[in-house]
Amino acid sequence: MNTSATHAPSSAHAHPALPTTMRANILKCQGDMAMETLPVPHLDADQVLVQVAAVGVCGSDVHYYEHGRIGPYVVDHPLILGHELSGRIAAVGSAVDPGRIGRRVAVEPQRPCRTCKQCKAGRYNLCPDIEFYATPPIDGAFAEYVTIQSDFAFDIPDNVSDEAAALIEPLSVGLWACERAEIKPGSRVLIAGAGPIGIIAAQAAQAARAFGATEIYISDIAEDRLEFALRHGATHALNAKTDSVEGLDVDAFIDASGAPQAVRSGIKAVGPAGRVILVGLGADDVELPVSYIQNREIWLSGVFRYTNTWPLAIQLIADGKVDLDILVTGKFTLAESEEALKAGKQAGQLKAVVYPGR
Amino acid sequence: MNTSATHAPSSAHAHPALPTTMRANILKCQGDMAMETLPVPHLDADQVLVQVAAVGVCGSDVHYYEHGRIGPYVVDHPLILGHELSGRIAAVGSAVDPGRIGRRVAVEPQRPCRTCKQCKAGRYNLCPDIEFYATPPIDGAFAEYVTIQSDFAFDIPDNVSDEAAALIEPLSVGLWACERAEIKPGSRVLIAGAGPIGIIAAQAAQAARAFGATEIYISDIAEDRLEFALRHGATHALNAKTDSVEGLDVDAFIDASGAPQAVRSGIKAVGPAGRVILVGLGADDVELPVSYIQNREIWLSGVFRYTNTWPLAIQLIADGKVDLDILVTGKFTLAESEEALKAGKQAGQLKAVVYPGR
Amino acid sequence: MNTSATHAPSSAHAHPALPTTMRANILKCQGDMAMETLPVPHLDADQVLVQVAAVGVCGSDVHYYEHGRIGPYVVDHPLILGHELSGRIAAVGSAVDPGRIGRRVAVEPQRPCRTCKQCKAGRYNLCPDIEFYATPPIDGAFAEYVTIQSDFAFDIPDNVSDEAAALIEPLSVGLWACERAEIKPGSRVLIAGAGPIGIIAAQAAQAARAFGATEIYISDIAEDRLEFALRHGATHALNAKTDSVEGLDVDAFIDASGAPQAVRSGIKAVGPAGRVILVGLGADDVELPVSYIQNREIWLSGVFRYTNTWPLAIQLIADGKVDLDILVTGKFTLAESEEALKAGKQAGQLKAVVYPGR
Amino acid sequence: MNTSATHAPSSAHAHPALPTTMRANILKCQGDMAMETLPVPHLDADQVLVQVAAVGVCGSDVHYYEHGRIGPYVVDHPLILGHELSGRIAAVGSAVDPGRIGRRVAVEPQRPCRTCKQCKAGRYNLCPDIEFYATPPIDGAFAEYVTIQSDFAFDIPDNVSDEAAALIEPLSVGLWACERAEIKPGSRVLIAGAGPIGIIAAQAAQAARAFGATEIYISDIAEDRLEFALRHGATHALNAKTDSVEGLDVDAFIDASGAPQAVRSGIKAVGPAGRVILVGLGADDVELPVSYIQNREIWLSGVFRYTNTWPLAIQLIADGKVDLDILVTGKFTLAESEEALKAGKQAGQLKAVVYPGR
Repeated sequence: MNTSATHAPSSAHAHPALPTTMRANILKCQGDMAMETLPVPHLDADQVLVQVAAVGVCGSDVHYYEHGRIGPYVVDHPLILGHELSGRIAAVGSAVDPGRIGRRVAVEPQRPCRTCKQCKAGRYNLCPDIEFYATPPIDGAFAEYVTIQSDFAFDIPDNVSDEAAALIEPLSVGLWACERAEIKPGSRVLIAGAGPIGIIAAQAAQAARAFGATEIYISDIAEDRLEFALRHGATHALNAKTDSVEGLDVDAFIDASGAPQAVRSGIKAVGPAGRVILVGLGADDVELPVSYIQNREIWLSGVFRYTNTWPLAIQLIADGKVDLDILVTGKFTLAESEEALKAGKQAGQLKAVVYPGR
Repeated sequence: MNTSATHAPSSAHAHPALPTTMRANILKCQGDMAMETLPVPHLDADQVLVQVAAVGVCGSDVHYYEHGRIGPYVVDHPLILGHELSGRIAAVGSAVDPGRIGRRVAVEPQRPCRTCKQCKAGRYNLCPDIEFYATPPIDGAFAEYVTIQSDFAFDIPDNVSDEAAALIEPLSVGLWACERAEIKPGSRVLIAGAGPIGIIAAQAAQAARAFGATEIYISDIAEDRLEFALRHGATHALNAKTDSVEGLDVDAFIDASGAPQAVRSGIKAVGPAGRVILVGLGADDVELPVSYIQNREIWLSGVFRYTNTWPLAIQLIADGKVDLDILVTGKFTLAESEEALKAGKQAGQLKAVVYPGR
Repeated sequence: MNTSATHAPSSAHAHPALPTTMRANILKCQGDMAMETLPVPHLDADQVLVQVAAVGVCGSDVHYYEHGRIGPYVVDHPLILGHELSGRIAAVGSAVDPGRIGRRVAVEPQRPCRTCKQCKAGRYNLCPDIEFYATPPIDGAFAEYVTIQSDFAFDIPDNVSDEAAALIEPLSVGLWACERAEIKPGSRVLIAGAGPIGIIAAQAAQAARAFGATEIYISDIAEDRLEFALRHGATHALNAKTDSVEGLDVDAFIDASGAPQAVRSGIKAVGPAGRVILVGLGADDVELPVSYIQNREIWLSGVFRYTNTWPLAIQLIADGKVDLDILVTGKFTLAESEEALKAGKQAGQLKAVVYPGR
Repeated sequence: MNTSATHAPSSAHAHPALPTTMRANILKCQGDMAMETLPVPHLDADQVLVQVAAVGVCGSDVHYYEHGRIGPYVVDHPLILGHELSGRIAAVGSAVDPGRIGRRVAVEPQRPCRTCKQCKAGRYNLCPDIEFYATPPIDGAFAEYVTIQSDFAFDIPDNVSDEAAALIEPLSVGLWACERAEIKPGSRVLIAGAGPIGIIAAQAAQAARAFGATEIYISDIAEDRLEFALRHGATHALNAKTDSVEGLDVDAFIDASGAPQAVRSGIKAVGPAGRVILVGLGADDVELPVSYIQNREIWLSGVFRYTNTWPLAIQLIADGKVDLDILVTGKFTLAESEEALKAGKQAGQLKAVVYPGR
């Protein structure tokens, strides 16, 4: 966490009552959260200051809390977690239209460099210098205020709730997976779930339906999650313990499980020229059925976050084509962030939301 | 081999002197080749009868000869090997323009059904009912005559030799790999070679250059093959024993080695949004660095033969942009087919060619 | 019309009671229809004989009836009109599974050559040798029986009516237009209607909604058609007489009007990198705003029939995502075909259907 | 021209001897050029200051000089012309690596906003807020110094001359046209030339060859230009006065003429599923053969400048695949800029280059 952050400079446009300090619930080190008072973060010319309304808890937040690291990213300084968020613009940088102050926004929590080869090709998620919320050393949103570049804070209409706006972030992973899987009207899709905080599959199913998929198979080992998926997007449920998916001959397989056996089986469910998108975080190396892939010229890839998904997500929610509010099963104050991080482990829990204003 | 085959029917157009029998060198069973006299194959209305001029020996021919099978394809009846061929049209079926008789042609040795979903989508190589030369139970070209659908026999100009026309088949694998790898002007490509009959890499290098690649790295363990590749398409040679390819940050990696370690290293040579195409035949299952693939949104696939590559190949050869004649290091009569199958094992040998008319 | 056609040969599989003659309502010459008795058409090995259940009347049928020609296609011999059809398989050719007999099918009324460059690339609609129903000299479906290649007769489920199955043909034009316009979730689309038999726009709107478009503007000069479109797919209606579409900044413009002024205005409704698809038949040459197209790098093209759309269409109808039954406003016996051709001119009429079995 | 520009601020890294004023040859108003002394332009944090080495004269420069406007862009204040340039980095902004000082660079003369929908999708050339050199009110390069964002100044190797580096700008138009035309190995291309300063066609021919086109037809009315094109990329020359191009059945047609009749004829040279790219500046509205386009599903678009072409262009020049030096037929000092603007009208002149350091 950058403790040299200062309050919004006088050159920025801001509410008169804008405070100079804020509360945040900070991951001090592995397994240790603490409420602290910090300076409101510095506001660059092209940024907006967002008063955070709602923050969803993601599996990666839990992983940092429990293990103090994810792969090469180590929490060696205090870090504010949380990257699924919505809020209201409290102040704007000197280059931003002051008319944005007061707007409700959903935040895309990343800051690409905008000048590298990947950024200029429209693939800013692959920018090697990108900064991403709640990924060391970049602070996240378990705090009263955050800053973000103005074009990464998207206006939301009144019929999109704070919680839904926050959950656009995980939905975006599903939308991006569907886009890369080339889901289109009439597509037949298999989605494998069963992760520890396993709602990505349900969101991918909603996304696939929005892309026009007509047969959406969900495979999982938890019956309650299968039933939930059937109510919200999936057309068929398969219990991974008893039902084989091989031979389904689907157009696309989206893995949200990260389980090597599910990945292998799922690939063998794909027909010629189909696509496999690996969303789940798993082992660095996995044994894959390469001859099956070669003989059918299947394309296999993954998703790394997302690019340009917020406008579509907002439209889908506003039009009622995707319902994110149903995913919220736990609500917590900022001081209760640690409980929120632990909530996902409990039976029947899908998504915990923290409200920094409470 | 279908021994019920009969000579060309009287309704077909043919040379007056067309014989009713022909010689063929047949794989009787694993490791056992024999010259036999057979009826000239039956000619369907949409087919041409081709008097075979030259046949290249492929690694799959050698594999059938040595092991009697490739995966699920078992030589349980006598089989004529050979699927890299050129020749001259000797007769045409009733629905084919008789003006084609006498034309020199390169043969694309496959017969898709033309009516399935894959065929109608322009991906006939993925047709589940396709027939392919020298793949049990479909006979190949170590014979004086073969039949093929007229549109799969492509006219070649005078400046394309019989040998080059035959070797369009393996070149097509390279062209198809480059097309699927989206090689384009300025692309940086890594090609891993080192297969037992390892000229696919050299052909892939020539193909990559034809697609405009400006940096073409070849990785192999044999110095003589690296030198050969440097003379014919490659811009950089890397000895896989001593040079690391990881971090090269290429746009595409084409594996022609089938070696798991080469595949794994090669994938880690690919930059964000790059492509990996697996050409080499190897194990059914291979451990792959999936988190590397996911984090860079790399696309991985394979090639299964090719689609619509002959016209480009003929053009490239005729224009001198690809030179296939340099690959021929052994020439054999039809009776010497067994020696031809064994020739690839010897040092310095690249491609053996059988001449059924000799 | 090919009067040398004969009944199904004994080698084909057929119902015992299959007749050898049939009734047809034939366009003898411009403006002159007549009921006649003809031989049931000859059945090739790869074809099915379809007892026609329902035939939609298309604007091109009306044009042949009224003018005796469309562009280079001249009715200089008697011709059976009708190319939007469904029916039941009454007999199959020798190479077709007899199990298909009795199946209800929707017919894709074209016969590509399957061997040319376009066919083998998956663009069989662009085959230069294609035969298309009711396009001289190829007969259509105002008759009790027709033949079609088996893979162009698609099984339909019980919940798809004969009329809906027939109207898959014009729906396919809309689906193909949406596919070429790259309509996807969140797309904003403008569709210009107002043709003489103007339901293409309504079908394009339904298709666009199926592809995920969230804003679908319909522009027309007839208020009743605008109201109809609003009830069935469109989200906004614009009266072309009073409302300007320029500056809408849509992602795609689909012209189903063929009116030069509508085309020009519609193009100027498209934003940067957007797409324009011209469906409407109009003048050979039209003045277009090319500098507008250049400055925004807009892609402009048309649709020529369709490729591989029936499976999706059947799925959309079966799933209730597209409703074609609502388009039927007139029902006619085979003997009343001439009235059916005239019906579209009357107020409130959308689609006339002829039932050859009645 | 922004006369409030000041010298590089002290916070920027610069050569000790960097001057505070510079010479420029300014278009005062239509037809009136004058040498003036101006402040060296202000250097933003993300910019580099380039000492201009060579500037090519473009047809648009000539048009501004002769007519004082191009479409909506009016020279109502003094303007520095010139947007084809190379030079050497003399100073860098505070956020730029000082190690860049002294580097020879080719300048991509545009400044997109980087935050709009088009920029973030990788289509920054379509940015509605883009600034482009020598387009009112943005100054160009007939001056000793210019500024540009650091990532738009590309290092060039020693074997790329100042002139070639400057001419990457017009080459980029050709490369971008080839990319949008989907030129690939084996493509057959028609390029129509004949513009007033007509070397775009020759550059497009070089670009097409770099993309692998095997048949490159150039159509022009000037025999000397046809001969030049034949020597540098084209494979066939057609005199537009006497030779018809209709029916050529090419895969792509690139119009660099802007002549309506050439555009119409060229479109009719394109085969099914082919592409038409309009490069030439011409009338706002042109009558096009739309039914021809529809019936063959041809895609038609234009190019608006280019995106991400400099790296490829530099590679092609450095590798000797494109030769731009041969295009230079006139060399001028900064004081002779007006003569340079007039040079293109003379017979045999292709490209005039101004050297601001002379």
